[in-house]
Amino acid sequence: MALMQPPTQMGTPMTDHDQSLSAPFGTPGSRALIDTPALVLDLDAFEHNIARMAEICRTAGVGLRPHAKTHKSSIIARKQIAAGAIGIGCATLDEAEVMVAAGLPGVLITSPLVTQGKIARLMRLVAGTGDVMVVADNPENVAALDQAAAAAGTTLGVLVDLDLGQHRTGVATVADGVRLARDIADRRHLRFAGVQAYGGHLQHIPDHAGRLAATRAADALVAELVAALTEEGLAPGIVTGAGTGTHRINAGGGPFTELQAGSYTVMDAEYGDVEYAPGEAWPFRQALFVAVTVVSTNAPGRVTTDGGTKAFALNGPPPRIAAGPLAGAAYAFSGDEHGCITLPDGVAAPTLGTVLDCVVPHCDPTIAHYDAIHCVRGDRLVDVWPVDARGRRAAAPRG
Amino acid sequence: MALMQPPTQMGTPMTDHDQSLSAPFGTPGSRALIDTPALVLDLDAFEHNIARMAEICRTAGVGLRPHAKTHKSSIIARKQIAAGAIGIGCATLDEAEVMVAAGLPGVLITSPLVTQGKIARLMRLVAGTGDVMVVADNPENVAALDQAAAAAGTTLGVLVDLDLGQHRTGVATVADGVRLARDIADRRHLRFAGVQAYGGHLQHIPDHAGRLAATRAADALVAELVAALTEEGLAPGIVTGAGTGTHRINAGGGPFTELQAGSYTVMDAEYGDVEYAPGEAWPFRQALFVAVTVVSTNAPGRVTTDGGTKAFALNGPPPRIAAGPLAGAAYAFSGDEHGCITLPDGVAAPTLGTVLDCVVPHCDPTIAHYDAIHCVRGDRLVDVWPVDARGRRAAAPRG
Repeated sequence: MALMQPPTQMGTPMTDHDQSLSAPFGTPGSRALIDTPALVLDLDAFEHNIARMAEICRTAGVGLRPHAKTHKSSIIARKQIAAGAIGIGCATLDEAEVMVAAGLPGVLITSPLVTQGKIARLMRLVAGTGDVMVVADNPENVAALDQAAAAAGTTLGVLVDLDLGQHRTGVATVADGVRLARDIADRRHLRFAGVQAYGGHLQHIPDHAGRLAATRAADALVAELVAALTEEGLAPGIVTGAGTGTHRINAGGGPFTELQAGSYTVMDAEYGDVEYAPGEAWPFRQALFVAVTVVSTNAPGRVTTDGGTKAFALNGPPPRIAAGPLAGAAYAFSGDEHGCITLPDGVAAPTLGTVLDCVVPHCDPTIAHYDAIHCVRGDRLVDVWPVDARGRRAAAPRG
Repeated sequence: MALMQPPTQMGTPMTDHDQSLSAPFGTPGSRALIDTPALVLDLDAFEHNIARMAEICRTAGVGLRPHAKTHKSSIIARKQIAAGAIGIGCATLDEAEVMVAAGLPGVLITSPLVTQGKIARLMRLVAGTGDVMVVADNPENVAALDQAAAAAGTTLGVLVDLDLGQHRTGVATVADGVRLARDIADRRHLRFAGVQAYGGHLQHIPDHAGRLAATRAADALVAELVAALTEEGLAPGIVTGAGTGTHRINAGGGPFTELQAGSYTVMDAEYGDVEYAPGEAWPFRQALFVAVTVVSTNAPGRVTTDGGTKAFALNGPPPRIAAGPLAGAAYAFSGDEHGCITLPDGVAAPTLGTVLDCVVPHCDPTIAHYDAIHCVRGDRLVDVWPVDARGRRAAAPRG
């Protein structure tokens, strides 16, 4: 019996396996088709999130350049642009190459690219579209970018990256920021495009008051740099930063012309533990899950699943079973390929083969484990989206 | 200027990027071609490890069925077979499908497959080769396997999986093991192939004495099951188990006919912290590294690399810089895409663009982050091997 294939935008034909699926393994379009462990996206929740953040930014009069490091999916990026986003943030050159190839506009690479090989690839992207920008925090890097842009006969937009105290990337002081901006503006083949100031360390401060205070302090530093630049005749066109954790604070006034949030798209357990605002629930719904299957039930008081350390990010809370009698049960990793669920008192063990949806611990690095996102509406599998910007790095020796 | 491409067995043509590489980004075959973050394999050390474990098992008169969950690479598996391995262990059906498609013999799937969809795929593999076995720990699962084998008109070799105290998978008692073996043997379309007894919890016990005692206790349980089975006329043809951490103990006598070690191939920081044997160093060399690049140097006392939580496994020690003035420096993750190295007292910051090799924290889940392994001899990039058994799961809805 032939199976109706769910609609797909993957561009690759399904494998032989799919051709020979027959009814016992799931009715056409049924969620039972999903082979675990697997990423599962609740499309209703996802679409709500995309629309809600777009509305928040529109209402606040601030731009949204959502960060693709979360989803690494050009399909999701396209939906964000369709909802009004002004561009796409990319953490890596690989992500940027995929997004540009997919026709996404306004790509901003949010980490410095410092090697000759990466800079050469960047120039190919810029020469192709003219619509790719990068951040820099170092005068040597600025000189290298200018030289490469000259060689490529193009002009590159460069933003000064400002360190907000995380000490990851960015210039360390306002004076350094002004100096670097002047350096960029004086280069023949670079264009000073603005300022990036992202505080990764601010996003998950769990209590709103603490997050508000730390964010306002960081905002003051950004405002100081913007003022100093303006005084120098270098008023930044773009002031970009903020994430899902601080989007509400940063949308409510301050130095930013645009926000870089990403996790709002799908949410995760880590953000679920963050207080949105006093008396206010998160306006975004949990949309992303990892589906796992119970594969062993012999040990008393526990069952084993097929979701281990290769199926979930480890830098977040443990996976949380989303619904049913096991919601809230402790989930511990039992090696690379297995998870162990401790049965709560009085809860019977699920039968072998039971599929459980787990709220992802930390969305970005969990998605990066997978090649595909399974999109569901209720019990129906309606689409499969490739995580097309993952895992490309180092696939072949490149310059 | 055209660049000589390093030899590759990837089967896919290199991308446009590679065609247009020119000399400044690395001489042909130079390590400088490797785009970071990237997996780097020291081929001399790797080949030493493959040969050494083969020799250990040959000398001990025990078989070696190395576990592909470590490397997820059919090229490495083929080299293990060429060195005398009797088959390949696979943790997942995806791994097994890749290994079978690559022509690897003696594939044993070491985790129970319990869903109808996975069992159907398994039957396709078995029908194609007749040379794939699976473990089971549950009579319902045995019945389902038999039914599927009957429908497929084939016979499947099934091993009884015994729990050695990790409570992950496996029958809980010797009596349960005998009962399940009898059940398998009585099924028309199954063949009782033997016993699997893997103690994941034993492998990394850091002191040798503790590991020895725990392993001997587990061995006693395995021996008890083997004796009980033999008494029932079900003497197991295969008794498989052990890992890199216990291979020396298990090769030195005991119930096993074959060992399932995997990590010895490349080694990692986690095993580096385990005492091999009193007064004896590990006979395997560290062969696998993640190369990272210094991308920011503005913060005093530290530098930032491009290797974050998407580049390394988190369930092991932190990355360790393998050589040079920063060997032993503290490496902390600074988000998904960045790492922070604290400069030891008196050590100058490396310049922007410096590439550093880090010993992988935990090999299996680190490899699973990547699509390719870059093989080097000294300073030369000599090959690129795909991690062809990674990330396939859930690429499309399958049965």
